[in-house]
Amino acid sequence: MTITVAIDAMGGDVGLKVTVPASVRFLQDTPDVNLILVGDSAGIEAELAAQPASVRARITVQHTTQVVGMDEAPQLALKNKKDSSMRVAINLVKDGQAQAAVSAGNTGALMATAKFVLKTIPGIDRPAIAKMMPGTGGETCVLDLGANVDCSPEQLLQFGIMGAELAASLQHKQNPTVGLLNIGSEDIKGTDNIKRAAELLRESGLNFYGNVEGNDIFKATVDVVVCDGFTGNVALKASEGLAHMIATFLREEFARTWWTKLCALAALPVLKHFKARVDPRRYNGASFLGLRGIVVKSHGGTDALGFRIALEQACEEVRANVIGHITDRVASQLQNLKRPESEA
Amino acid sequence: MTITVAIDAMGGDVGLKVTVPASVRFLQDTPDVNLILVGDSAGIEAELAAQPASVRARITVQHTTQVVGMDEAPQLALKNKKDSSMRVAINLVKDGQAQAAVSAGNTGALMATAKFVLKTIPGIDRPAIAKMMPGTGGETCVLDLGANVDCSPEQLLQFGIMGAELAASLQHKQNPTVGLLNIGSEDIKGTDNIKRAAELLRESGLNFYGNVEGNDIFKATVDVVVCDGFTGNVALKASEGLAHMIATFLREEFARTWWTKLCALAALPVLKHFKARVDPRRYNGASFLGLRGIVVKSHGGTDALGFRIALEQACEEVRANVIGHITDRVASQLQNLKRPESEA
Repeated sequence: MTITVAIDAMGGDVGLKVTVPASVRFLQDTPDVNLILVGDSAGIEAELAAQPASVRARITVQHTTQVVGMDEAPQLALKNKKDSSMRVAINLVKDGQAQAAVSAGNTGALMATAKFVLKTIPGIDRPAIAKMMPGTGGETCVLDLGANVDCSPEQLLQFGIMGAELAASLQHKQNPTVGLLNIGSEDIKGTDNIKRAAELLRESGLNFYGNVEGNDIFKATVDVVVCDGFTGNVALKASEGLAHMIATFLREEFARTWWTKLCALAALPVLKHFKARVDPRRYNGASFLGLRGIVVKSHGGTDALGFRIALEQACEEVRANVIGHITDRVASQLQNLKRPESEA
Repeated sequence: MTITVAIDAMGGDVGLKVTVPASVRFLQDTPDVNLILVGDSAGIEAELAAQPASVRARITVQHTTQVVGMDEAPQLALKNKKDSSMRVAINLVKDGQAQAAVSAGNTGALMATAKFVLKTIPGIDRPAIAKMMPGTGGETCVLDLGANVDCSPEQLLQFGIMGAELAASLQHKQNPTVGLLNIGSEDIKGTDNIKRAAELLRESGLNFYGNVEGNDIFKATVDVVVCDGFTGNVALKASEGLAHMIATFLREEFARTWWTKLCALAALPVLKHFKARVDPRRYNGASFLGLRGIVVKSHGGTDALGFRIALEQACEEVRANVIGHITDRVASQLQNLKRPESEA
């Protein structure tokens, strides 16, 4: 099966100079994918001219006249930017011309547009943002990372189902374990919402591990960590902030004197290897789950390598039929919930 | 002024073998403080015998017969452990025999006991847990870190007041800046509670900066970050988990081959300096704020160095009269809130 991915070529802090080279490099490594680059066609063609021509035949350019600003209000973008590269890329998924859309643009606008154009899967109240996070014991899928500030217990259950299907697909895990983010492992911990969500998850048929705490994310205690979007977003950004602080301190220590600089030189191969291992670009690509189409959000500030990783993730989701699996699982879950009523 | 600090000598994962040496070492460096070591007197005396005798005269031993378990339910500890080292240490603060209590014991039990024995300051609904966190631009006081899972806007305002007084005292900051933890800087972000809290903080007379995000904690964008205890606890533990992961990866990379081990040897002085800079023991000591007495919680797993830092923090709070300042500030805040009513 040949996969077609629509790319919001204008999205991100840099735009074309990242998205186009990344697209070309990605196609060179991935034979079964075609790309539609959506955006200003003259700009895209100019960027393509600078790239090796070998994969040009597998790229279609779709011209659009508008760009959604990185700080634009989502509702305004939705209303006024109907010919934006972001909107048209998602339209292509809706129309079946592409199986996935990838954008490094404005997260809020991308979510609002994706929700409006693609709609949610039956049984899913609202989409969630999910991301794989590194850990000492492997990777963990965490959701929601910011799409929903308030979450009902039912929504947290839906996140569990969606996260489990994503982990099963991307990590090839059989029956992945699902944990509920809380402030202690005991059942009495947390808000009423969290306690009720734990009950729903326990009864759901998912491989529910129970409560997990913030540090479990980076230990890969479970395959999937479920949380509301407020908590998830704060945890993600606090972690990014801490990683940045540690990197800064490490750099400062090695740059302190000529002697420490010599030490850095000696340790360079090891430090490089370490840096590659914790490189955030390797974990770029957040999945918008719960929609009737695949949308992957790349970090706005990433480079061509990071954007390629997001492209790969989108294709993995297509190959694994994540949306089909989520749809089936939610449908059977709804069936189970209905059964007791009809028996009553 | 001589300060007396009551120490829960039995608390923590290790207990006496950490608390007693830490106490002795602390007294050696701190002339104006006396300590009351609360716990099993035979055990304490045995530990003291192993320590240099120079400071023995400034230590009183108060015998108790019970110990609160690290996993014991707070309400059970409160009910059944009236002669525990933890309870008696807090009683000493209540009775004015000590100006602060320090414990490395069970956080929930310590909070429940402190609240029950000491009561909250008038105008403070519930105490909060506050901690200084390191950052690229200095330190940030973050609260609440887990005492309150649900917080009203009024409580978040109280946290702002308490955090500002703690930062002013410990960091000697004039009019410290206060940020509200959110998932974006714009006013429209976050839950209704958060939006209302932002309004209250803006009108409060505090030096309110506005919304901050998770990464701002480790950038020291503001002096104080206010959040509910659920979010704060998750952010703190996620950060601890990430720091542990990074340390593990760094160690693994340097231990990979004989060549990388040589690199590590060459870089050792720099790595040691770096490690000291991010040493969690340096940031040990969480303040229970909002009580009518000073209680500092040490990490349960810390060593004598970490416990000493917690002791130093408790003394700093006494010297700076943090409780007096919080009491005055809250009283004047309440006065301001009442004024419009009386005018109406």
